[in-house]
Amino acid sequence: MKARIVVTLKTGVLDPQGKAIEAALKSFGIESIEGVRQGKVFDIEVAATDRAGAEATLKTACEKLLANTVVENYAIEIA
Amino acid sequence: MKARIVVTLKTGVLDPQGKAIEAALKSFGIESIEGVRQGKVFDIEVAATDRAGAEATLKTACEKLLANTVVENYAIEIA
Repeated sequence: MKARIVVTLKTGVLDPQGKAIEAALKSFGIESIEGVRQGKVFDIEVAATDRAGAEATLKTACEKLLANTVVENYAIEIA
Repeated sequence: MKARIVVTLKTGVLDPQGKAIEAALKSFGIESIEGVRQGKVFDIEVAATDRAGAEATLKTACEKLLANTVVENYAIEIA
């Protein structure tokens, strides 16, 4: 079963990397960018017979390794 | 206008980072993971009056900076 996990910074958490990307885009002449926040995406193949099983596995993966839940949110999308 | 850009490695391009994450998940006892590929996500706020304008700006941003189109694909989703 294919799934995608998107990990993004929580609102209010500073994102210097996003700011740097925004500045770089502007220096390339792309002026209409008003904000950039960078996150991570994981495309994962899970061995599971049902969606609920896959979701439980992926939730554990997020909590244990993929996301730092103090400062990051995660979203699980199962295809 | 809010948009999300997802940058992923093209099929066939090796992803050692993904392999390392897969191994780490297995070492945490999450055995049902069969594959992981990591990508990047950018949440971008664009000043544009219409979707076509925003899409054109974001395409330029991807081609110039956000994605290495030799080894990466990008997808633009405008909210």
